[in-house]
Amino acid sequence: MIDVYFTPTPNGHKVSIMLEETGLPHQLFAMNMLEGDHLTPEYRRINPNGRLPAIVDHEPIGGGAPLPVFESGAILLYLAEKSGQLLPENPRRRSQAQQWLMWQMASFGPMQGQAHHFIRYAPEGQAYPVERYRNETLRLLHVLNGRLGEADYLAEEYSIADIAAWPWTRAIRAIGLTLDDYPAVADWFARIDERPAVLAGTDVKNAANLSSARPVLTEEQWSNLFGKNMLEAPAR
Amino acid sequence: MIDVYFTPTPNGHKVSIMLEETGLPHQLFAMNMLEGDHLTPEYRRINPNGRLPAIVDHEPIGGGAPLPVFESGAILLYLAEKSGQLLPENPRRRSQAQQWLMWQMASFGPMQGQAHHFIRYAPEGQAYPVERYRNETLRLLHVLNGRLGEADYLAEEYSIADIAAWPWTRAIRAIGLTLDDYPAVADWFARIDERPAVLAGTDVKNAANLSSARPVLTEEQWSNLFGKNMLEAPAR
Repeated sequence: MIDVYFTPTPNGHKVSIMLEETGLPHQLFAMNMLEGDHLTPEYRRINPNGRLPAIVDHEPIGGGAPLPVFESGAILLYLAEKSGQLLPENPRRRSQAQQWLMWQMASFGPMQGQAHHFIRYAPEGQAYPVERYRNETLRLLHVLNGRLGEADYLAEEYSIADIAAWPWTRAIRAIGLTLDDYPAVADWFARIDERPAVLAGTDVKNAANLSSARPVLTEEQWSNLFGKNMLEAPAR
Repeated sequence: MIDVYFTPTPNGHKVSIMLEETGLPHQLFAMNMLEGDHLTPEYRRINPNGRLPAIVDHEPIGGGAPLPVFESGAILLYLAEKSGQLLPENPRRRSQAQQWLMWQMASFGPMQGQAHHFIRYAPEGQAYPVERYRNETLRLLHVLNGRLGEADYLAEEYSIADIAAWPWTRAIRAIGLTLDDYPAVADWFARIDERPAVLAGTDVKNAANLSSARPVLTEEQWSNLFGKNMLEAPAR
């Protein structure tokens, strides 16, 4: 059994989709970040970085004590190795999957994440960072569109690279962007959207908030996500 | 032979150190980003994302045509698989190495990178993003210090996770930070700093600019790094 510490965010959906695709037995534990569920010492023993998602595998590869795994990209690699699925064996495609997985982890996720922060959460009126991260997200969509104009999937066959990039492509509507200028991305998005495991991994119960409305947070909730409570958790 | 498209940045040094550690035959091609060497169509066939570093392996795993690999984290995974070195076989340590590699790729690199941008390159006077990214870098140093208080290396044995995190730890001085409050990080940093391959991979010829002075760039140079020239390259 794999315990999943989960929120219905793009990074959370990578893991819920992967588990549906592979059929590995799992149970979701819903974590409420607004209430600070990620800030407890107990959770930091699972994820020292204090972010979501994380898993604990009670029957880990190689046996032994339950294995905690944090970072969505590392969870995808681990579950691919455990299941023998969705990371190609062919060395060229295997590297392609690793390359696009890393591209999502290092750029398409974090830079779009900064766009979400400045457009939806930060104090308003900051033109430079809003433009910086919106422009970078558009540049990255151009890059994605270029690749998907050459191949049906990022590593030619459907893989953990697509599972990583798809939920972040889905999230662009929350910052007011569309796929209208990226037809190859739109086709790929629709192909993946039809997969039963993707439907199951992003069902209503787990639905992300894709509204572009600015969330209204209390001071405590803002601090749990971005402020003193989050920043000082590792030192407690 | 492995061609390395290289700049002496933290991400570049991950690859130069890894190649020195593994002894794989390679040649460096120095790329001048200020002059826009990364913006050409030729280079985008190697790295569709237009960033540095990238490699081309002329004798790739599995044979066939020369294989381009982009994203420093994917290059580390590829070179670990090619050489059979620095990614543990033990499943638990293997996952630990993947977790901390992803942590570096998704957070310690990109968020510190944003701190460098706002402290050193962006228009001055932006207090909120400067504080946001400086605080996040400090939080991440706390997380790193916690892990290195339990183990000599991120995955217990020296691995690609350390090779990824070390150059970004080295870079903190350029944003005016020190390791004074992070003794376990300082000890780990010194242990790795003594390795001959690390010395060779970061020698004077390849030295990063670790000065915290604000670089003086022409408009064209700024555009090549952050502006119109960089943003519009994928569409050309």
